[in-house]
Formats: sequence, structure tokens, C-alpha cells
Amino acid sequence: MHLFYTPDIAPNAEAYFLNEEESKHAIRVLRLNVGDEVSLIDGKGGFYNAAISDAHPKRVILKIQSAVYEYGKRNHYLHIAVAPTKNIERLEWFLEKATEIGVDEVSLIICQRSERKEAKTDRLDKIITSAIKQSLKAYHPVLNAPVTFAQFMAKPFDGQKFIAHCIEGEKLELRDALTVNGRSLIMIGPEGDFSEKEIATALENDFKAITLGNSRLRTETAALEACFEVNFLNR
Amino acid sequence: MHLFYTPDIAPNAEAYFLNEEESKHAIRVLRLNVGDEVSLIDGKGGFYNAAISDAHPKRVILKIQSAVYEYGKRNHYLHIAVAPTKNIERLEWFLEKATEIGVDEVSLIICQRSERKEAKTDRLDKIITSAIKQSLKAYHPVLNAPVTFAQFMAKPFDGQKFIAHCIEGEKLELRDALTVNGRSLIMIGPEGDFSEKEIATALENDFKAITLGNSRLRTETAALEACFEVNFLNR
Repeated sequence: MHLFYTPDIAPNAEAYFLNEEESKHAIRVLRLNVGDEVSLIDGKGGFYNAAISDAHPKRVILKIQSAVYEYGKRNHYLHIAVAPTKNIERLEWFLEKATEIGVDEVSLIICQRSERKEAKTDRLDKIITSAIKQSLKAYHPVLNAPVTFAQFMAKPFDGQKFIAHCIEGEKLELRDALTVNGRSLIMIGPEGDFSEKEIATALENDFKAITLGNSRLRTETAALEACFEVNFLNR
Repeated sequence: MHLFYTPDIAPNAEAYFLNEEESKHAIRVLRLNVGDEVSLIDGKGGFYNAAISDAHPKRVILKIQSAVYEYGKRNHYLHIAVAPTKNIERLEWFLEKATEIGVDEVSLIICQRSERKEAKTDRLDKIITSAIKQSLKAYHPVLNAPVTFAQFMAKPFDGQKFIAHCIEGEKLELRDALTVNGRSLIMIGPEGDFSEKEIATALENDFKAITLGNSRLRTETAALEACFEVNFLNR
């Protein structure tokens, strides 16, 4: 079954026109014809079954046959804030895996010790899109453009806030601290960790320090571990 | 602190000679000198602190100053058997991450639906080695050369045996089935999953079917999810 990501589809649409690029892909590459069935996801929970009614190579018309809303709706909300890795492939890898395992929102934060000060979200967003298609998810995780640690601290978040850092001290285990079926934000630092000042600032802003276990994890592994734990505890 | 992997060091050694390649790296690249301190891990739980007593560019002599045995010894044994992914980088990625999170043994199994029928373990083993150095682990996970599913079934394993497959049916959750602080083997299939025959064979061989959650996961993600769950449940 071929799947298309169609964020602009109307929830009650009876038909949908694939754009020129997707039309070309559908007809020239996938060699689909009139009557062939495809699936559409809108990234907002809508999952549609459709059939090709016009196999025009530049303007494929799909007839919507059925729609399911809130497809695979999650029972909690997870926001991961992570410092972009020096090697961008490690961040890309995290985004693919986090999308497979389950995440709702990802923020990129530039910290004091961040070697990478920017990240192009358009390319990163494409990775998330192909991951939702691959893992059949109807919800598209939101990726926020990079902001500084200070800017991120100024943003409100309605839910539990956690910071995972490597400095010794009193830390909670998510299994003890996380409210199941709730909203959580987990912040993961860059290679070299958060600075002491950043940790102090986070604690002042109602973040609670957590441990992700005794292993020394890379930034992207720690971010995925946090994803794993929150999804596992909400299962 | 520079770390060297020295699997051939004697547990009670007073000195250790770096081989020519490592000596060159230590002196020419890291620019280490007499008196500089380094750490050694032997992959069998030994963690050594040493100092350079002779900075010979081809035969560095290290004086062992202290040794810790069973460094970071794990409280359980995890063996993951996974079908090598079509794209070998996905398997390499799994090996790096599993090493960071915690795994003791990895077997590569060629299944009925495996598109990849072989995998070069020497290169894969190097990835594990760099991961233990990066994550400061004194134990080197064992990587077994690829065998067929049938060959793997014929191997004994002293512990709990699980198979994670995607076919509908009665499945256990690891949190309910896993014996904490025990020995477990978890088998993960190729893209396209195990065949029904392979699943039946595994069940006949005392494997229990488990679920890794409702998300559709890639082979390497499922293998890492299994790794994560076992480590989390043993924390």
C-alpha cells in the first residue's frame, strides 16, 4: 500500500489532488493507475484510504473512500528539547528513531557548550516525514527551529519539566517522577553537557533533574533513551 | 583522559607495551609524553590507570598504576539475536547504541526473508570497540558471526528466550515476563519479519512471543527497544 503525506487535505474532503511532484512520483515511479488504492496521512491524526480516479502525471486526482481521525492517537504528550549534535547525522538519526518510538514535539536548543550553533530544520523535517510514512503514523511530530537555551527557558510549557544532565547530585528516576498520561518536556544537553549555570537556571525554572541510568550516553542516545522511557512508562 | 583498548593485558600486569599502531597514535597523534596518564580497558571488566614510562613511537611502555576488575559489571546478561539489516549502516548504528545502553552478546541470524545474507563481523566489531571506549565500558560485547536461523535454533541458551515478531496473536510484555537480574535472549527478525514457520519453530524451541509496543519499528529500532526495555527493567 502506497502512502502519501498530505498535510493540506481537508478532513471531510471527497477528493484530493496530488501536487506535481507527487503526481509524477505516483505515475512515473510507482506506476499507479486509475483504480489503484493509496493511503494518505495528514500529520494531524487523519488517515485516509483513497483510489486514483485520474492518473494525470502532473495532477493525480484521488477519490477519498474512507477516513479515520485521531489514528493512533497517543495517550500522552512528549516534548524533547535537545542540543543539535556536532555531527548532524546523529541528530537526524535521533529524529527518525524518536518518530518511530513516539514523540510529539522536538525543540533544538543551542547551549553554552554547543559546538553546533545552527541546524536546518527543513531537511530535518523531511526526515521526520519519511519516518512517519515508514512507521505508519498519522501524527507528524513538530520540529521547532533552533533557539538559545535562554530563549527556550523563556517559553512556557504546560506539563512536567525535566533536565537530564551528567553532573553528580540528587536526581529522580522517570519511573518515579513521571505522571502517566500526562505532558512532559525533557531537556538533553550537548556533547560536554549543560553548564552548571544552565542547570541552575533550569532548576529555577521548575525543571527537575533526572537520571537516564548509569551508562555514559551520547547526546542523541540520551535523547532517545528519554523517549524510550516516557513511551514505555505510558504503555 | 585517553583510553586504550588492550584485550591482551594480563590482569596483574605491572607494565604494558602498546602495539606499533597504538604507539604511533599515542606519540604522533595524541602527542603523549613520558609521565602522561592514560586508561586501559581489557574488554573483560578490567579498567587500568597507567602512565607512559617510555614514549617510543613504535613501542610505548606503560606502567600500570592501578587496576579495577569487574568495572561497571552488569546485574544481568542480555543476548540480542538480530537479522542483519539490508542497509548495513542500520546494523552498525544498532551495535553502537546497544553497546552504549548495555548488551552482552549479539548474534546475527540470517532468516528466510533476510535480504542480506552476510555481514563482515571484523568491521562491526570495531564499531563496538569504539563504542565501549566512548561510553567508558570495561566489558566488550561479544559479536557472533552470522548463522542461519536453523543453526541458531540448534544453539543452547541458558536463560529466558523471547521472540519479537509482528504477527497478531497472544504476546507477553517484557515487564511481565522478564526475570530481573537474569539471563535473556531476544530474537529480532529482518525487514519483512520472521516467517510463520520460523515463529512456530522458535515457539517449539521454548521462545516466548513478546510485544515491543504498538509502534511499527524498523529492525534496528526493535532490537534497540528490546535492549532498552531489558536494561530499564534491570535498573
